[in-house]
Amino acid sequence: MEAMRIEAFLRVCVTLLLITTACLVRFDSQTTLIFTSYSRTATFRDLNALFVLVFIDISAAGYNLIQLVIRGLLYSHWKPDMKGPYKHLAWFSFLLDQAVVYMIFAANSASLMVSVYGVTGEHHLFWMKLCNKFNRFCTQIGGALLCGYVASLLMAVVSFLSAYSLFRHYSPKTFLVLK
Amino acid sequence: MEAMRIEAFLRVCVTLLLITTACLVRFDSQTTLIFTSYSRTATFRDLNALFVLVFIDISAAGYNLIQLVIRGLLYSHWKPDMKGPYKHLAWFSFLLDQAVVYMIFAANSASLMVSVYGVTGEHHLFWMKLCNKFNRFCTQIGGALLCGYVASLLMAVVSFLSAYSLFRHYSPKTFLVLK
Repeated sequence: MEAMRIEAFLRVCVTLLLITTACLVRFDSQTTLIFTSYSRTATFRDLNALFVLVFIDISAAGYNLIQLVIRGLLYSHWKPDMKGPYKHLAWFSFLLDQAVVYMIFAANSASLMVSVYGVTGEHHLFWMKLCNKFNRFCTQIGGALLCGYVASLLMAVVSFLSAYSLFRHYSPKTFLVLK
Repeated sequence: MEAMRIEAFLRVCVTLLLITTACLVRFDSQTTLIFTSYSRTATFRDLNALFVLVFIDISAAGYNLIQLVIRGLLYSHWKPDMKGPYKHLAWFSFLLDQAVVYMIFAANSASLMVSVYGVTGEHHLFWMKLCNKFNRFCTQIGGALLCGYVASLLMAVVSFLSAYSLFRHYSPKTFLVLK
């Protein structure tokens, strides 16, 4: 039961952090003068990594909400055994939690990598740096990525807990046999 | 014991795939004429995502080799219990395996994202496309990334197995108590 309460608390934190990240990226925009009479607005749509990040973060937050609802409904008559629906729920949570951590960590890292090009540019490839023009935009994206990494870390702990609550029901002697 | 043999086999596959990916990226280079009298050589050093990918893939391959050596040495007198060094090894493997999957999956995804800019360019940001000039270079990177994703997938299965072989020794009734 302790594991369940910790897990529920962590899922709430992860959901809030993911929504914060998604909103910070989604509503980030800055208009600036690039050449003397040509102004441009930078939004998350300009970088497909950021677009993917918003999509993945919102999906992951939705998944965590569904998990919280399912666990809330089951909580009153929860038994720590692995009969019928509990076994399926445990496997389903384990696999999806793992997948969600991989996705949000990878989306964050991809955005970070692309943002690094925004900050430094890539002289060899004739890619110009952008963050000297779009200063506030870049700072907000930086904050969002920090928030996203904290969410990934907490989600990794959630996935450890769901692996723990699945596998502790299996026999230590024979392979993939329930106790 | 079945789990151990499957795990060892998967670790060998992952190591080979990671080394293949790293070599494909490391030794990829193409010289081409960009303007009429200006030629450029593209290597993995031009994109820091690829540089990070090579570094992470070689580290992960090294980690898997160390794991194989440790398990090879312990194999003859392996007992499926959790006393003394076995418990520490199981926790150590579990945590590091998880970290390795996150790292290689994230490095691959970041490289993929950057490669997409290489293929399509980003007109809004004045980033030019590169793969029309460096065709063979880009194809080889594509092959390397495919190889890297297969390695990530197999490594995820390894991390499931190490979570399984750690947590099945814990009690299904009380929190974090060994059976």
